[in-house]
Amino acid sequence: MTYLDNAATTYPKPEVVYEAVLNTMKNHGANPGRSGHKLALEAGRTIFKGREVIAKFFNIEDPMQIIFTSNATDALNLAIKGILKKGDHVITTSMEHNSVLRPIKSLEKIGVENTIIQCNHQGILSPEDIRKAIKENTKLIAVTHASNITGTIMPIEEIGIIAREKKIFLLVDAAQTAGVYDIDVKRMNIDLLATAGHKGLLGPQGTGILYIKEDIEVMHYKEGGTGSKSQELTQPLMLPDRYESGTPNTPGIAGLTAGIEFILQEGIDKIRRHEESLTEYFIEELKKIDKIKIYGPQDATKQGAVVSINIEEEDSSEMAYILDSVFDIATRPGLHCAPMAHKTIGTFEQGTVRFSFGYFNTKEDVEKAIEALKTICEELDQ
Amino acid sequence: MTYLDNAATTYPKPEVVYEAVLNTMKNHGANPGRSGHKLALEAGRTIFKGREVIAKFFNIEDPMQIIFTSNATDALNLAIKGILKKGDHVITTSMEHNSVLRPIKSLEKIGVENTIIQCNHQGILSPEDIRKAIKENTKLIAVTHASNITGTIMPIEEIGIIAREKKIFLLVDAAQTAGVYDIDVKRMNIDLLATAGHKGLLGPQGTGILYIKEDIEVMHYKEGGTGSKSQELTQPLMLPDRYESGTPNTPGIAGLTAGIEFILQEGIDKIRRHEESLTEYFIEELKKIDKIKIYGPQDATKQGAVVSINIEEEDSSEMAYILDSVFDIATRPGLHCAPMAHKTIGTFEQGTVRFSFGYFNTKEDVEKAIEALKTICEELDQ
Repeated sequence: MTYLDNAATTYPKPEVVYEAVLNTMKNHGANPGRSGHKLALEAGRTIFKGREVIAKFFNIEDPMQIIFTSNATDALNLAIKGILKKGDHVITTSMEHNSVLRPIKSLEKIGVENTIIQCNHQGILSPEDIRKAIKENTKLIAVTHASNITGTIMPIEEIGIIAREKKIFLLVDAAQTAGVYDIDVKRMNIDLLATAGHKGLLGPQGTGILYIKEDIEVMHYKEGGTGSKSQELTQPLMLPDRYESGTPNTPGIAGLTAGIEFILQEGIDKIRRHEESLTEYFIEELKKIDKIKIYGPQDATKQGAVVSINIEEEDSSEMAYILDSVFDIATRPGLHCAPMAHKTIGTFEQGTVRFSFGYFNTKEDVEKAIEALKTICEELDQ
Repeated sequence: MTYLDNAATTYPKPEVVYEAVLNTMKNHGANPGRSGHKLALEAGRTIFKGREVIAKFFNIEDPMQIIFTSNATDALNLAIKGILKKGDHVITTSMEHNSVLRPIKSLEKIGVENTIIQCNHQGILSPEDIRKAIKENTKLIAVTHASNITGTIMPIEEIGIIAREKKIFLLVDAAQTAGVYDIDVKRMNIDLLATAGHKGLLGPQGTGILYIKEDIEVMHYKEGGTGSKSQELTQPLMLPDRYESGTPNTPGIAGLTAGIEFILQEGIDKIRRHEESLTEYFIEELKKIDKIKIYGPQDATKQGAVVSINIEEEDSSEMAYILDSVFDIATRPGLHCAPMAHKTIGTFEQGTVRFSFGYFNTKEDVEKAIEALKTICEELDQ
């Protein structure tokens, strides 16, 4: 199987990730932050080490501002619904995933307004459009770092400058970029950073992260046992306990930590350059095939390792099915949980076939995909 | 290390659980329910198999009514906050964990009333007290199946009869019983069953379950990508998608499934009898030690494999520290995230030292604990 579905979840993971998960389960599988015995303390240290590694990775000052969640969606819901109240206004973009758009749309019911900035047909966002959309009651700008369909990289730094100037919170959905693109919450003026643990960060499924900048009031949703202030029937407000009720996914967090440590060891620049070179090669070769329509920037320096295509007017699911069943190539067709993005690039009816590369993909994988697409196109002529 | 903290999380897990987690990560670590390629389908089958095994285990008719959550707290918050609206009344007990009490107390702010039934000093609940507390607007009874402090088993079947008669929903927190005590949602008239995956069910941390009976309206909290109805900006209302936005914890669910299959293979009766015999032996031996105060029913047939004690007026944390550091025995001291339960049994100031046994504990483990307690008591005399 040639796995080109890394935008959904990276696969495989580094060996150290498997080892960390297994080691945690087998050798210190106690409940962290609850009991005080050796195994529980060891589990607690595992969690805290994870926070420290993540803090360093994103240039976050205080590791206690990092909240472990079950996935990026969990983190995004907490951030969006925790920040926005009746009467507030939020700005987002037409390239967002449903994990941003659905929470924002649902908040209309309680009187939270939204403006969805239209991106161009390559998924490119103009920061000035964000500025123009700001109103008196704008409290939050929620924007993806890179589209999960076209890979289009958003101008986070420019948006960060606008957000800071206007004193509006900036929430970045880094599900498609964390672990591959450098993210510095200070330099980029990111107030809230949400991401998955199981994509570019190379951790296991069941992990996600929300960073909340100091002194930002985010209402918690869940209440429960935190191992702290147990005598009280109200949720403690200290971080991270406020947002982390119940037993955490200790093995998952250990695996995520190992994934980030792997990235640090390899070097994020090396990883990005590798993915860029695969993307560049893929796009160049795709351009040579007549029947292929390529979406997005078509420029590996302006997009993540995600390339959406169609073959003429063929159904995207049918094409992905052929790639899988005949050529043993895993891609993802359809709407990718981002309907407005497909409307933006003009593929709402057809969907696209999405190829997404990871660090463990090789040039041969890309060649295999290109050959398969050529064969499919030739077959269509017959 | 003699691990007697199984009420926090069971440890170790059966080998098959480790294998299932690792196998899923290594061999079909794709994103279930999203793409349609072989690896993604295999991951999807893993999740569905989990639902089927769980459904069978709790006598649930439709596996799609089973929601995977990140822990029991997650499941309890979803159930409690998804059911109760302004003007409703909920009945619960003084033996509940903060994962039940804190959500219920927080709902007071939006006008949800509550009645907390006082249990006796052994943690025993009278079902008639529940009946007396029912009002016109009572919508939910939320009760633990067994206390996490005294192990006291609650009369769920009697409460179920009352709930059915009065047309009130019954939510059971089975975090301390699932996997050890037989739970049949039909026979027990349970409308909502919340439990952890990582305790008696022997799965990995990061897993939890909420069963929602057909046709019960539970408002979802999270919205996002579900891999279904991707064209829509509103959350799909079909189950389980409605409550399972974002990438699930596929390896964790595979591990949980393996844990339940292990229980089915061993036989839940055998597991319960083993835990009962350890508890019985422990209680009998404890009674012979003068300085020990035992809380709860002190009857292995009326409590789970959880025994809370104190040594005279000694600080519970200090005693647990000695058990850990001198005798290499892991217990959990303090309030165990259940302050009202400690008030109920009269240990709110002192806390208790909690011993909790699992299927992998042996009689030797119990003997070791008894010997350690005897030694501590003798030392106190000197």
